[in-house]
Amino acid sequence: MRMVDLIEKKRDGEVLSAEEINFFIQGYTKGEIPDYQASAMAMAIFFKDMTEQERADLTMAMVNSGDTIDLSAIEGIKVDKHSTGGVGDTTTLVLAPLVAALDIPVAKMSGRGLGHTGGTTDKLEAIAGFHVELEKEEFVRLVNKDKIAVVGQSGNLTPADKKLYALRDVTATVNSIPLIASSIMSKKIAAGSDAIVLDVKTGAGAFMKTVDDAKELAHAMVSIGNNVGRKTMAVISDMSQPLGFAIGNALEVKEAIDTLQGKGPKDLEELCLALGRQMVYLANKASSLEEAEEMLKEVIRNGKALEKFKVFIANQGGDPSVVDHPEKLPQAAYLIEVPAKTDGVVAEIVADEIGTAAMLLGAGRVTKDSEIDLAVGLMLNKKVGDTVKAGESLVTIHANRENVEDVLAKIYDNIRIGDKVEAPVLIYGTVTE
Amino acid sequence: MRMVDLIEKKRDGEVLSAEEINFFIQGYTKGEIPDYQASAMAMAIFFKDMTEQERADLTMAMVNSGDTIDLSAIEGIKVDKHSTGGVGDTTTLVLAPLVAALDIPVAKMSGRGLGHTGGTTDKLEAIAGFHVELEKEEFVRLVNKDKIAVVGQSGNLTPADKKLYALRDVTATVNSIPLIASSIMSKKIAAGSDAIVLDVKTGAGAFMKTVDDAKELAHAMVSIGNNVGRKTMAVISDMSQPLGFAIGNALEVKEAIDTLQGKGPKDLEELCLALGRQMVYLANKASSLEEAEEMLKEVIRNGKALEKFKVFIANQGGDPSVVDHPEKLPQAAYLIEVPAKTDGVVAEIVADEIGTAAMLLGAGRVTKDSEIDLAVGLMLNKKVGDTVKAGESLVTIHANRENVEDVLAKIYDNIRIGDKVEAPVLIYGTVTE
Repeated sequence: MRMVDLIEKKRDGEVLSAEEINFFIQGYTKGEIPDYQASAMAMAIFFKDMTEQERADLTMAMVNSGDTIDLSAIEGIKVDKHSTGGVGDTTTLVLAPLVAALDIPVAKMSGRGLGHTGGTTDKLEAIAGFHVELEKEEFVRLVNKDKIAVVGQSGNLTPADKKLYALRDVTATVNSIPLIASSIMSKKIAAGSDAIVLDVKTGAGAFMKTVDDAKELAHAMVSIGNNVGRKTMAVISDMSQPLGFAIGNALEVKEAIDTLQGKGPKDLEELCLALGRQMVYLANKASSLEEAEEMLKEVIRNGKALEKFKVFIANQGGDPSVVDHPEKLPQAAYLIEVPAKTDGVVAEIVADEIGTAAMLLGAGRVTKDSEIDLAVGLMLNKKVGDTVKAGESLVTIHANRENVEDVLAKIYDNIRIGDKVEAPVLIYGTVTE
Repeated sequence: MRMVDLIEKKRDGEVLSAEEINFFIQGYTKGEIPDYQASAMAMAIFFKDMTEQERADLTMAMVNSGDTIDLSAIEGIKVDKHSTGGVGDTTTLVLAPLVAALDIPVAKMSGRGLGHTGGTTDKLEAIAGFHVELEKEEFVRLVNKDKIAVVGQSGNLTPADKKLYALRDVTATVNSIPLIASSIMSKKIAAGSDAIVLDVKTGAGAFMKTVDDAKELAHAMVSIGNNVGRKTMAVISDMSQPLGFAIGNALEVKEAIDTLQGKGPKDLEELCLALGRQMVYLANKASSLEEAEEMLKEVIRNGKALEKFKVFIANQGGDPSVVDHPEKLPQAAYLIEVPAKTDGVVAEIVADEIGTAAMLLGAGRVTKDSEIDLAVGLMLNKKVGDTVKAGESLVTIHANRENVEDVLAKIYDNIRIGDKVEAPVLIYGTVTE
């Protein structure tokens, strides 16, 4: 088999066999197939797409390129949740204890990564003492006992995806549905869960700018999951404005606590329920999504979800008293209000730019080696559709420096006040096949 | 400027500026832009094509990537001829003295290359003593004095094209009109001629299998030439069967001598006149193509073309008596006839496969270091449309080995005898803009 022939085949719109896709991915991972052939193939895929079978085969080839996590020692159906990424997305912090409170095992591997704020691991480390360095046996023991644990990433998962993603990034082949879908799904599948719930974001702060693109990606990923034997569902949710009010690590922990008590931001709560009900349903704990949603609401009402969060924190060395005393979380030195300049209705809060404003404060990493300031960030006081009077605060800046002119400018540039604007749709639909 | 942005631009069907194309080509030549970005760009061009301006800009960027030949010391309008390559193509050997006999300077740089037979240099070396190692001053002096000289390739012409072609060969991006056209034209333009006549082949033995594809390529090249200030015309000619009768180095020299005497194969003569009249017209020696053709026929009739061939040979160290005594050319040890197995009409002579049969005898190079046997080759005794009786010779094999079973099998496999077949069209048209 010659790689040049496979490129030509795809270029001409033909379908690659599983054997051919494996030849490409294993050869590329080992360095036997050079970057210049892989990039030509990626561009041919960009133009000619892949069938559902090819996408599933590509995903499994990438899964098989490296280590996979074996979660079989954990009892029950392990359901993982993945978001395609947004600004102020606190759903994982809420969903993990919420679902675990219904005896569904949450065995989460979480990274740090780059972005406007830290990853789930960084956010949890805002709780004094909390750590994710668990031995595998301890991780399994905790999930079996209390249904919840988060561990740092380890092992060489999907090296083919890492290599191919880096190549796509410099060859204008990132933006391809089959390549994006197989990249995300390969990582999720290698991480070992039995079922997967996807939160596919759309809008200014998301990779998929339109609802149609987001639906196409969601369908592609759900199809891959189901084709390779992992039950998968997806929610398409809005990321034109940040989710919830908090953008920042400690601020989002506080917001998660609020939400587990039933007093969080409406949009965050709604999205957590939409994703959570799919997780409960896929875990076979409910016979319908409606029933699943009721069960989730019940563990919020009766305090079991909040209690589960405390157990989770304590199990991993953290101080559970922050749940009742969130003022123990890291606090920024300066709180600076951002007053509206005119009366009106908030018409737009450009999600990614507002995220960047939080990053300017130190809430996220610019490079892999950046230090995160867990205390800093932004609290939105208004969301799209809210009326506002001149002088009223749009945003509260939590900063550890006195001069925040750059952040102020960024915020004013990206919050537009107009009139008669409706709150945007939060959930554009669910994809189940 | 970032290469990834240029790839994305082309991927999305936008037009690249001359500056952007230069950035790509100069960066790639210097090794500042890696192969994997160049191959992604080539694949994007494959799918999204280039405008006429982009093609001209790409061609000139490749010309400017290396040395160019300065022919300004040679008086008159220098017209070069280029063929996209076929089997048994003796046109260069005929055209060079034919056109020079009309006082049009033929300053030819010629290589060896791979193929079914050798290049023009190899063929001429079948004449005892002939050599192409001329100093530049001697080359110019000969052309100014006698209007004809051939010199071996020197200098680092179009390194960008060499590098890009090698990359395209292994990334399934060869077959792209803008890339093929700019590759050919950059080499011709770097070689310094003022005007260019192109022979674009079509059919089984050619790169362009259909007439439409050949016309598209011809138009692309003519447009590039005219856009960069080199007057360019093209002929679309058949290469479904080999041109003329001879396939082999010495055999083709003999055939060229016959043709310069007006007794060569009809198809070879017709094509030489079609190409030659464009050369004469572009050299401003005739006011119409018809007038140009008459002038060419006249120098064949009056012997001036043949005389010019003798002067040319003598000037470059060769023995001009071969023209009157072609038996002095290298002769093969064995002449083996290939008798027809049935009565009928020759329906097909698959050009490239018959060329391969000649190569099996040693007429061409398989690798850069292969030795060519100048004496061996094939003489076709029948062409498509000819009637044949069982036992009559289809081909005469000129071999330097006794056992030619492999060659015989190849020939029988690729000459089909049927009934009522018309001779194929030789010239499908001319492209002048």
